[in-house]
Order: sequence, then structure tokens, then C-alpha cells
Amino acid sequence: MMEQARPLDALNRSRDKRVLVELKNNKQYIGKLKSFDIHINVVLEDVEERVSGEVTRKLGVVFIRGDTITVISTE
Amino acid sequence: MMEQARPLDALNRSRDKRVLVELKNNKQYIGKLKSFDIHINVVLEDVEERVSGEVTRKLGVVFIRGDTITVISTE
Amino acid sequence: MMEQARPLDALNRSRDKRVLVELKNNKQYIGKLKSFDIHINVVLEDVEERVSGEVTRKLGVVFIRGDTITVISTE
Amino acid sequence: MMEQARPLDALNRSRDKRVLVELKNNKQYIGKLKSFDIHINVVLEDVEERVSGEVTRKLGVVFIRGDTITVISTE
Amino acid sequence: MMEQARPLDALNRSRDKRVLVELKNNKQYIGKLKSFDIHINVVLEDVEERVSGEVTRKLGVVFIRGDTITVISTE
Amino acid sequence: MMEQARPLDALNRSRDKRVLVELKNNKQYIGKLKSFDIHINVVLEDVEERVSGEVTRKLGVVFIRGDTITVISTE
Amino acid sequence: MMEQARPLDALNRSRDKRVLVELKNNKQYIGKLKSFDIHINVVLEDVEERVSGEVTRKLGVVFIRGDTITVISTE
Repeated sequence: MMEQARPLDALNRSRDKRVLVELKNNKQYIGKLKSFDIHINVVLEDVEERVSGEVTRKLGVVFIRGDTITVISTE
Repeated sequence: MMEQARPLDALNRSRDKRVLVELKNNKQYIGKLKSFDIHINVVLEDVEERVSGEVTRKLGVVFIRGDTITVISTE
Repeated sequence: MMEQARPLDALNRSRDKRVLVELKNNKQYIGKLKSFDIHINVVLEDVEERVSGEVTRKLGVVFIRGDTITVISTE
Repeated sequence: MMEQARPLDALNRSRDKRVLVELKNNKQYIGKLKSFDIHINVVLEDVEERVSGEVTRKLGVVFIRGDTITVISTE
Repeated sequence: MMEQARPLDALNRSRDKRVLVELKNNKQYIGKLKSFDIHINVVLEDVEERVSGEVTRKLGVVFIRGDTITVISTE
Repeated sequence: MMEQARPLDALNRSRDKRVLVELKNNKQYIGKLKSFDIHINVVLEDVEERVSGEVTRKLGVVFIRGDTITVISTE
Repeated sequence: MMEQARPLDALNRSRDKRVLVELKNNKQYIGKLKSFDIHINVVLEDVEERVSGEVTRKLGVVFIRGDTITVISTE
């Protein structure tokens, strides 16, 4: 029997790739996905923060608390 | 004795079909349902984001955090 | 000793009957109750979405995440 | 040693009596308390919905999700 | 070794005394503390509801759901 | 091997000292920290409530529900 | 087999370094990271509070409740 796909598998395939993380406060963080856990806490590297499409900051390493995230997409 | 239907059975029947996921922030994501878990974290493929009925973005793979979802419907 | 009634018993008696589910965002979904779980995740069939009393959409099957629900009533 | 009173005891004494349930969205539901559980999910019968003191609907049976409730009082 | 004080000890010392319970919606309930539990669900007796300092209702017994409470003080 | 510091250690060092507790509703409570638990429920004694920098009330003992707290600082 | 990186590892590498903690209420706290736990409760030392980019307060030790945090970044 084949095991069924799980949502965290998709995040796992994005490790070390650039992803776009969107927050409930509408901020976006684009960076390389270094790690995540079951709470969807996420760590990104080489990060751009964007608000309303504008780059607002460049950041080295960002820890994002899972419960503030709405969606994570590959660019 | 027949086992009673459970809500996740309905999601299971929608695997690999197009579904419409609505978020608390009123964004909609329409795409092929690839996976979900008991927190209702969801992964969609070939996704259109819509806001107020307008397509705002096309995305490859989107991970949606369960606690931001209100309803999931078949189109 | 008689066992005391529990809230989920009331939902159980509404299986396959039409119910009205109200959400925190003030949307209403009227449809046949197919299943629910202890998180009050709910699946309805043959659904009408209503906003401010107006029918806004007809939907086949709708999964509603429990934590977005305020009340469920029989019509 | 006397056991100390617990909040659910007070709800238990109100079974089959009319109670007033108030929600975070300011709606009020007045009806006969049929059941409740540890999440404070509540079922009322013969219910009046009131908004700003006005009766807005009469309902047979209403299931109210606990996390949407602020206070429950006896009339 | 002396055991360290815990927050629920303070509530316990207020049993059968008048307390002021403040809610996230800014309502205040002043009454005799009859019981509480680890979720900080609280039952008051002989209760005055106040909004903006004005008494808005007198109530016999009030069950207050813990997650709606901000602070509880002795008058 | 030295054990690593934990956040509750810092609260523990503030027992019986004056702390400033800030709430999500922007109220501040300044008082002597008498107890706290893992939910960050907190009890203060000899308390001043401040709103926008103004002292609005003096209170004897205040129980503050953890999930309403944003930060706790030493004055 | 190499163990996979976890988000808390990144926080661990920032111990005793200056970090920027951002809250849901848009306040920022910049200080030396002294400790954190699995709820992402955090303790900072030698802290500057900033609102809209302006330094609003200097604080010695600040305990920040995890569920109020959105992101933590290295400056």
C-alpha cells in the first residue's frame, strides 16, 4: 500500500529552495527555507521582507512563528 | 455496524481534484488538492489566488496553514 | 443511572438533515449535514451560501473548519 | 473533606432551565439548556436570538461552539 | 522546602469574596466568586455587569468562559 | 554540562520584585510579582493600572490571565 | 544519516547575540537573547523598544510571551 502524501512532505521538498511566506499581518518574507517543524515554525535565510509588493528590509536569518503564517508558496 | 462518515473522508475523496480553499483574510486559493492533515493544513498544486473574484496570482505549489482556513469546497 | 445528554448528540440527530451553519465572518451555509467531528469540523452537501440573507453561491460539498463556526441550528 | 465547587457544577444545575448565552459577536441566545461539555459547547432548545435587545430569530435547537461564548447567565 | 505560591492560590483565597472580572470585550462583572477551574472558567453570584463604569445589568449566577477574561481583581 | 537558561527562570528571579505587565489591550499593570505558572498566568500585589501612561486605578491583588499578556519587564 | 535542521536550532545559535523580536501589535524589541522555550517565550537583556522605527523605551530584562511574536531576526 502506498503511503499518502502529507502537507509537510511538500515543505520538505522545498528545503534549501526559495519560498514565499505570507503572514496574517500581510507581510511577506522571501528566502531560502532552512527548517520548519510541526507547528510550521519556519527559518529562512537571505531574506527579503516585502509589504504591498515593496522590499522593506533585507535580513540574514529570520525565524517565523507558525501561528502567524497563512500560506507558503514556491516562487 | 456501519462506520459513520467523518469530515476528513470528504477531503479524502477530493484528493487530486480541484478545490476552492477560503481563508479568514478572504483570499481564495483554487487548485488541485494534493494533501491535508488533521490540522487541515493543505497543499494545493496549479493554484490560482483570487481576491474579490479577481485572479491575483498563479502559483505552483501552495502550503496553506489549517488555522487560517474557513471552508473548502469542490468547484 | 441515565447518561446525560451531550452537545454532539444533538448534532448526531441532525445527520442527513438540513442545518444552518454560521461562521465568525457572518457567512451562513445551509445544507444537509453529512458528518462532523469533535473539533466541530463539519461537512455539508447541497449547500447554499448566504451573506446578509442573500444567496451568494450554490455549492456541492463544503468542508467547514470547526474553529470558524459560531452556531449550528436546524432550520 | 468537602469537595470544592467547580464552574461546570453551576451549568449542571441549569440543565433544562432557561439560560442566556452571550457570544463574542454580541449575539445572545436565550433557551432551555439541554447539554454542555468541557469545551463549553452548548445545546439550547426553544431559542430566541437577540441582537441589541431585539429578538431577531426563533430557533428550535441551537448548537453553540464553546470558544465563541463569553458568559452564560440564568435569566 | 517551602512550596512556591501559584496564581490559582490567589483565586482560591478569594472564594466567596467579591471580585471584579474584566473581559476582552471590556465588560466587567462584579460578584461573589463561587468557583473557578484551571482554564480560569469562573462562576460568580449576585453579579453586577458594568460597561464604561455604568451598571448595565443585575444577574443571579454568571458563568464566564476563561479565555474571554483578562484580569480578576479584588475590589 | 551547564543547564541552559529558560524564560521562566527570569520570571522566577523577579518574584517579590516590582514588574510591569503589558496586555494585548494596551493596559499596563505595575506591581509586586507574587506568582506565575507555565501558562504565564500572573498574580501581582500593590498594583497600579496604567493606560497611555496615566494611572487609572490602584488595586490590591490582581490575577492576570496569561494569554492576554504581551511582555513582562522589570521597571 | 544527518539529522535535519530544526527552527529552534537557529534560535539556539543566536543565544547571547542581539536579535530583533517583532510582535503582533507591531512593537519591536531589540536585545540580547538570553533564553527561549518551545512556546517561543523569549527573554531579552539590554533591550530597546521601538515603535514605527523610534526608540520608545530602554529596558533591562524583558520576558516576551511566545504567542504574541511574529518574527525573530538577527540584526
